[in-house]
Amino acid sequence: MPGARRAAGLHRPHPSSPEEPPAQEDLLLAAAYVSDAQYNRNVPFETSPQAVRLYHFYNHWTMRAATYFFIWGDLALALFEEPALFPLPFLATSIAEVLCLTAFSGRLVHFAKVTPQMVFWKDTKNICIVVTIVLTLIDLIIYGSLEAVNIHGVRWSRALRPVFLINFPESRQIRRAFRSIRNTLPDILYVFLLFIFSMLIFSLMALKLFGDRGLKTVEGSPYFTNILDIAFELYVLVTTANSPDVMMPAYEFNWWYSLYFITYIIINTYIFMSVFLAVVYNNYRKHLKNEIRTLAYLKRHKMIEAFNILKVKVGTEFVVKEAQWRQLAKIVAPDISSSHLELLLRISDEGQKGYVDKMNFLRLADLLNIQVVTINIKRHPLEAWMPRVYQSSPSLLVQKVVRHRIFVWVYDVIILINAIFIALDEKNPLISYAEWLFLSLYIIEILLKLYTYEPRAYFGRKQFWNWFDTLIIIAALVATVANTTIQSARKYNSQQILDIVLILRILRLLRIIVSIQRFRVIVTTLINIGPTMLTFGGLVLVVYYVFAIIGMEVFHGKVHFFDPSSTSPDALVCGNPALKDSAFARGRYCRNNFNDLAASLILLTELTVVNQWHVLADGFALVTHQASKLYFIGFHVVVVILIVNIFIAFILEAFFVAYSLEKSEVETAIEKKIQELGVGVQEEEVQDGKLIDNVDAKDSGFSGDDGDNKRKALKGLYFRIASKKYKTVDALLQQMFESEIAPEDEGPSLEEILNFSPSDIHPKNPSFENSA
Amino acid sequence: MPGARRAAGLHRPHPSSPEEPPAQEDLLLAAAYVSDAQYNRNVPFETSPQAVRLYHFYNHWTMRAATYFFIWGDLALALFEEPALFPLPFLATSIAEVLCLTAFSGRLVHFAKVTPQMVFWKDTKNICIVVTIVLTLIDLIIYGSLEAVNIHGVRWSRALRPVFLINFPESRQIRRAFRSIRNTLPDILYVFLLFIFSMLIFSLMALKLFGDRGLKTVEGSPYFTNILDIAFELYVLVTTANSPDVMMPAYEFNWWYSLYFITYIIINTYIFMSVFLAVVYNNYRKHLKNEIRTLAYLKRHKMIEAFNILKVKVGTEFVVKEAQWRQLAKIVAPDISSSHLELLLRISDEGQKGYVDKMNFLRLADLLNIQVVTINIKRHPLEAWMPRVYQSSPSLLVQKVVRHRIFVWVYDVIILINAIFIALDEKNPLISYAEWLFLSLYIIEILLKLYTYEPRAYFGRKQFWNWFDTLIIIAALVATVANTTIQSARKYNSQQILDIVLILRILRLLRIIVSIQRFRVIVTTLINIGPTMLTFGGLVLVVYYVFAIIGMEVFHGKVHFFDPSSTSPDALVCGNPALKDSAFARGRYCRNNFNDLAASLILLTELTVVNQWHVLADGFALVTHQASKLYFIGFHVVVVILIVNIFIAFILEAFFVAYSLEKSEVETAIEKKIQELGVGVQEEEVQDGKLIDNVDAKDSGFSGDDGDNKRKALKGLYFRIASKKYKTVDALLQQMFESEIAPEDEGPSLEEILNFSPSDIHPKNPSFENSA
Repeated sequence: MPGARRAAGLHRPHPSSPEEPPAQEDLLLAAAYVSDAQYNRNVPFETSPQAVRLYHFYNHWTMRAATYFFIWGDLALALFEEPALFPLPFLATSIAEVLCLTAFSGRLVHFAKVTPQMVFWKDTKNICIVVTIVLTLIDLIIYGSLEAVNIHGVRWSRALRPVFLINFPESRQIRRAFRSIRNTLPDILYVFLLFIFSMLIFSLMALKLFGDRGLKTVEGSPYFTNILDIAFELYVLVTTANSPDVMMPAYEFNWWYSLYFITYIIINTYIFMSVFLAVVYNNYRKHLKNEIRTLAYLKRHKMIEAFNILKVKVGTEFVVKEAQWRQLAKIVAPDISSSHLELLLRISDEGQKGYVDKMNFLRLADLLNIQVVTINIKRHPLEAWMPRVYQSSPSLLVQKVVRHRIFVWVYDVIILINAIFIALDEKNPLISYAEWLFLSLYIIEILLKLYTYEPRAYFGRKQFWNWFDTLIIIAALVATVANTTIQSARKYNSQQILDIVLILRILRLLRIIVSIQRFRVIVTTLINIGPTMLTFGGLVLVVYYVFAIIGMEVFHGKVHFFDPSSTSPDALVCGNPALKDSAFARGRYCRNNFNDLAASLILLTELTVVNQWHVLADGFALVTHQASKLYFIGFHVVVVILIVNIFIAFILEAFFVAYSLEKSEVETAIEKKIQELGVGVQEEEVQDGKLIDNVDAKDSGFSGDDGDNKRKALKGLYFRIASKKYKTVDALLQQMFESEIAPEDEGPSLEEILNFSPSDIHPKNPSFENSA
Repeated sequence: MPGARRAAGLHRPHPSSPEEPPAQEDLLLAAAYVSDAQYNRNVPFETSPQAVRLYHFYNHWTMRAATYFFIWGDLALALFEEPALFPLPFLATSIAEVLCLTAFSGRLVHFAKVTPQMVFWKDTKNICIVVTIVLTLIDLIIYGSLEAVNIHGVRWSRALRPVFLINFPESRQIRRAFRSIRNTLPDILYVFLLFIFSMLIFSLMALKLFGDRGLKTVEGSPYFTNILDIAFELYVLVTTANSPDVMMPAYEFNWWYSLYFITYIIINTYIFMSVFLAVVYNNYRKHLKNEIRTLAYLKRHKMIEAFNILKVKVGTEFVVKEAQWRQLAKIVAPDISSSHLELLLRISDEGQKGYVDKMNFLRLADLLNIQVVTINIKRHPLEAWMPRVYQSSPSLLVQKVVRHRIFVWVYDVIILINAIFIALDEKNPLISYAEWLFLSLYIIEILLKLYTYEPRAYFGRKQFWNWFDTLIIIAALVATVANTTIQSARKYNSQQILDIVLILRILRLLRIIVSIQRFRVIVTTLINIGPTMLTFGGLVLVVYYVFAIIGMEVFHGKVHFFDPSSTSPDALVCGNPALKDSAFARGRYCRNNFNDLAASLILLTELTVVNQWHVLADGFALVTHQASKLYFIGFHVVVVILIVNIFIAFILEAFFVAYSLEKSEVETAIEKKIQELGVGVQEEEVQDGKLIDNVDAKDSGFSGDDGDNKRKALKGLYFRIASKKYKTVDALLQQMFESEIAPEDEGPSLEEILNFSPSDIHPKNPSFENSA
């Protein structure tokens, strides 16, 4: 989908003359460019004033939220359609679906108004959406008419629903993951063929070695007599799911035969599967670098467009006037605080000359992307309210105790004791009372902390761990109260609530993570990776959804789950006599079926975990046809060999990036400025609660020099860059590449950017990891 | 073991004066340095003439082979000791063991004579060996005396045997792998603790959620009622071995509970296990780079030492005379052909000035490491013998056909048809005859190729694929003949031979790999990685051996295997009533026991594959004590979490290196020289058999210019650099780092080299993958 990445602004109708101030329309257009650069949107929009306004509206968060609402609604319809978890009549679901389709069409029409006609129809994404809408409507009509005459049709178009999730411009990340998979396919194909070839050779050997021996499996069926069965068993062995059972009959016969299986496992499971990972990872890295580089160049391009719109000539160079710069920033980031804006201006207009030069202007999108935390330093309210008491020696002692390391340790011990109490039987009244004791101890801790630290600083926007701690305690409090209420009512009427209460009570043990620094670091890293992991969530959802819909159409109703208390003889064979004596029935797997969306998704998760997948595959093959094993093999290849490997590649890369990165140039510039202005605060200080002491000391040490003057504009405020720990991996990657582009570099032309091939990257620098 | 890497030559007693030619002793000393540099040995040896002679003897291949023989013999003793696969009396094995220990002591004494006393006793490796020898002797004496009075002791010292394999200086690679693991431990420890913590939290939740519900597992035992059992089950779930069975009772009760298990699997199986891989991989990479860098500097250091011994002053610069250079090369590489030596001299002494300068001298070790294939180009023997016939038009036609692409394709089709015939029943006489037909076709193919290509070129030392092809056909021929002989004898007396014959017959299908270029590339890459994979073989063997010895002492005789035909009621419970109704007995796992070394190693392989490991662990816990599960958990942590991840890290890195590498500087120099001298041959030409045509064309084209003169010395010979495809990953890595050292750079001092820390690498170059 190259069209997706076509950059904005190929033609700009009215370049304002360098002298006159730019009109509101130009400002809006420039803001659209800057905003696109900031969020890495690459939508080619028309530059007419009306189109730009429409484009701003198109990007408004309400519109995006509405789109996502309809996408999820459309996907969720599978819960209510036959085979349904919560059955609704066909009329209701079809009306809902038509509603969703209307919304998608509306969004698409809106997009068509914004983008040039030519570009719109060249973009595969848009065509995909249009085709899917039409196909869905046709399917709805056919299915509806058949239903009307009581013929049960197949709702095949439901498998197309994820197309909407993939193809709307907002799902860039999911599309990138798909592209990554597609790019990997040619490379992986030959490895896969060689792997299949090796599997077939081994199958042939197994047939010759074991076929005529008359061996029996544990179940008493003949062992390795049919080449197709052998190939399936050996494929299962690659996934390790039937090891060592598949080997036992041969091993019992002669221990030499175990060498055959060990060789097979070493070659196919260990070596080939690692090679798959290596190929997937290598491609992932290669294409990721390429895309990130393209994005970085496109961003530069858009910022130059924006600059060209607003530039005026001052002396020999083109610049943007301070007033325009302010207006622009206000449009792009309406919620920016004036002090933050002031800070950014100080950074961009270093010499306070009243204008921003080109180099500094190009940094605007990055500046806006850096989260600067504004800390409004004030005294503790209690100190203001009753300074005598707060500064009295007992009060100071309390504050000292709370700040001491031992205070943390004492509470760690308390949590551990609490864990032991939770593990013990709670029906004992003593333990039940202890519960309240622990809870009061935790609440006292929070209150003491609020007494010692300034509350607004303690609950600052980026004080993740303080929030985490407090929320857990509040949840535990609510849980314990709810538990007592329910228990005193002597009616366990809502089991789900009770379960949630139980879980909340146990989750409080997570507080121990907060107090161990090393744990906190690991968890923070994992949380950072979180947002991009959601991309994989999207990817997995798409694949799961398609497989679930197909599975429901094919295997629906073949296997039934009977209540465990049921005494029906059918319960033992999941209501299907074909399952008699099968491992599926023996394992009581009846609940693993395709009878509704939830059950299907759970079953697919089990298949992803791999273990026992062959039992599930065998079960469904027994109730339908042996060919249905292909469905399960296909799922394994797509999800385990491709997607899980990409997931691992992603985690590896994310970790390496997180390990290796320094601060970006732009961040350093901001920090320098913050320091220069004397309004900086170290992160550790805030975290350790030393903020106020420290600031006090500074205040007294400063005399009325230049620092104070500058500080006037930003009075009473302190700034801090939100730690890089809270950035997404994508942002880190992009920042890494940007540091390689020289600031004066205009970058290659748009055409060149869009035609980058992976081999173009670093051709001259064959260093240690330059495997691209 | 920092002593292991202490470089050679801290003191050099007699620096020869720059004018007089160096004595034989100096040559030997210099040769020792060069040889150490060539093979990356870092043994600190005395520089006295006697010690240097002893050192040459110490490094002689017979001594090394003898050491390995005794190491393997010592390890193999476990096959003959109680519990034995092939029982031998204690006297015999103990004598053999004492013999091995004597050999090890001798080797150590030899080493002590070579190395300075101080260094010897500072080296942990030597101390380890001494301690192990003493401990083994003590154990032997105690066990022997107890045995004499009929008390059965424990031969605990057997678990120490791998110490010899690890600690002899030759096992550098295995030690490096161990160091890599040791370095990873601190980093992985916190992740592991957090993982255990998360597991315990989930266990507590499971206890609270499911403990009181009165659920039953499929086997009818209570479900999730004991916190220890739950923790074990959840650990097993991380390995996915009991998925989805462990979830089914809760899932049957209420489908919401599946979310608990899915969350658990996502967090612990997917995220934590990926983090383990990331941490292991990152550390592996970091320390690998560091070690390789140290090695590269040490090599440079040794070459400078050698240069300083041999240097004489010519004009203003120090050089090594051609005569000395030749003598040195002859000592270091006694088998070098004189033409190869001539080539190297031409490269080192560019201007034919009669001496080699320092820069070129330092390259000697690398030059010797590069395998140059000498091709003695001659006409086809048949052409020489009967030129008329060979050059006749039918003969030329045959040659043309054989060289044609379609010839290859036709044979591919024949192989495929052959595969189908093999799969069919061979008792059919028609198929049995077809067998002979295929074989004759293959032999005709080989003969035709030998007719077309020059036989000595076709079977050149590095013509891997030609050898591969021919050997497979010969094996198939032998196999088919053997098969017929045995079948006609109507006595299937040796089953093993018959099985090998069968396998050989099927392996001929591998020929199809030869004719598909892409397959050949993948296989070549895998074969390159092979030697380093053997390092992992050593590593795995060490761990397996220790675990096997412990397992045999603890679990020996607890489980018995009965012949499948046995009707004894004990056969159903593996001879141990404690196994009644266990999954272990039901799965007929009786053969998976610790009753001899082979069985133990196979069992450990099954544990490495992970699936069903909990059934094995449960089984052995039932026949001994629940605590023995710790043995199995320990094995999983060590082998699957650490070693398998390092293996994957290694494969990934090896692949990336193989993808990314260019030719080294030294290789390019040799190639340039070969081209200059007009004695070069392209690899593809040799492979495609166009060698002779091409050379003929060149011959006629050349007039008697400078090229011919130069060629006289190398008359009739052609050279070709053995493709980089055939190099080890280690060599590739080292070459990569060396290209970063400037040729004049003397490198840091020895002390600095040995104290490199990983963070020293590339501190100034934070680029994309610089995660070190």
